[in-house]
Amino acid sequence: MTTFKLTIAYDGTTFVGWQRQAEGTSIQGLLETALADLDGREVTVIGASRTDAGVHALGQVACATLNRTIDGRTLAHAVNVRLPPTVRVLDAVEVPATFHARFDVKAKTYRYRILNDEVVAPFEQPYVWHVPSPRLDIDAMVEAARVFEGRHDFSAFQAAGSSTVTTTRVVLAASVVELASPWGGARLVVFDVRGDGFLRHMVRTMAGTLVEVGRGARPPAWTAEVLESRDRGRAGRNAPSTGLVLVGVEYE
Amino acid sequence: MTTFKLTIAYDGTTFVGWQRQAEGTSIQGLLETALADLDGREVTVIGASRTDAGVHALGQVACATLNRTIDGRTLAHAVNVRLPPTVRVLDAVEVPATFHARFDVKAKTYRYRILNDEVVAPFEQPYVWHVPSPRLDIDAMVEAARVFEGRHDFSAFQAAGSSTVTTTRVVLAASVVELASPWGGARLVVFDVRGDGFLRHMVRTMAGTLVEVGRGARPPAWTAEVLESRDRGRAGRNAPSTGLVLVGVEYE
Repeated sequence: MTTFKLTIAYDGTTFVGWQRQAEGTSIQGLLETALADLDGREVTVIGASRTDAGVHALGQVACATLNRTIDGRTLAHAVNVRLPPTVRVLDAVEVPATFHARFDVKAKTYRYRILNDEVVAPFEQPYVWHVPSPRLDIDAMVEAARVFEGRHDFSAFQAAGSSTVTTTRVVLAASVVELASPWGGARLVVFDVRGDGFLRHMVRTMAGTLVEVGRGARPPAWTAEVLESRDRGRAGRNAPSTGLVLVGVEYE
Repeated sequence: MTTFKLTIAYDGTTFVGWQRQAEGTSIQGLLETALADLDGREVTVIGASRTDAGVHALGQVACATLNRTIDGRTLAHAVNVRLPPTVRVLDAVEVPATFHARFDVKAKTYRYRILNDEVVAPFEQPYVWHVPSPRLDIDAMVEAARVFEGRHDFSAFQAAGSSTVTTTRVVLAASVVELASPWGGARLVVFDVRGDGFLRHMVRTMAGTLVEVGRGARPPAWTAEVLESRDRGRAGRNAPSTGLVLVGVEYE
């Protein structure tokens, strides 16, 4: 028996999300089917993050234990030939049998991509939230994002109806930068956030809140009021899943 | 009657190409339908380049003449709401009625994108030719690309069975650079070529030839032999359409 740590990229557009569902295609389901085919038995795949429908990943991490003896590189290749091109295993390495992709997470980094230009090029469209106007105020968004850093109760940024043991999380870094799209140079506003854990819809609600500040509807200090209120009704909208990318997961 | 010059971006993945065909969806067809809907009459759209099935564009240029009075910005918006997100009018400006998008072209720039890494991320996959190995020799490709520059008979790089009045074209610039993919940093090898005109499959056959050199199967000087031979059978393969992007079109 060998346990593998898999690093996975996917385009979430056509999936019901990471997790297996009663209907529709999930990334977890595709990986379990591919691994079962390789191992000749049922295989359970545990992901670091249960990304929602439409959310993308550059560096999701998952673990799975196989009966057969195989090296990581061969495994990654064998799984990839059994997957659609929208899901790719970037790396597979042997880890101790005690490794758990979800429980052992030390930090995760998410990126939220906003296309702030009149027209969105077809190449960017599936991977952004299109906010055509007004021109977002980056300085105000940088200031607002800084409010998220530190240990806070993020109840105001949690999906309505969620129940978790604790709503306190540590945001290690939160930044906003402006980039030119590699496809034609349109204005991309990119929000990166690294933390020890995230509540359901937390990054997307942060993004919705930052856009309220960026478009001048609220001052940056409003973000602190929202955070302290612990009231989901006060934050910005849950920004579309298309703009969200799980960039990476860190372990000890 | 007002003539407009349209600048158009598209993801070519799902289309039969620029030009209207008996079956399948073309970019020209979609634009003509959208403009006819706006103008209440049939409208002909003429493109600078008849890109093949699967070829993308960042800056295709087309012209169309409308009966109704409308400003360019409003026209671009009105057309975009009638198009799928895979086709976007980036710009529409009034031009003299004598303007012809194809006959008046002074230069066009194409880009051919090669992903030279073991695994291609889902975000790049529709927009590259995946050459997983070996590691391409950029210096050799730069040297080979330089051979294309100047006025030459490009018969060796023309699609088999083509008939054109002349096979002589002027390549104004041909370069190869190495970039990191914005999606995870995989190695992208990008071939840019600007010329006064291109034969059918010319850029893709150049790309196939450059990859032969890059992988060490042929020395850079072989490119000059192929060019001088005027024999299509001697050049490299016609590289896949997925990697090709029409970057822009220049007029006087």
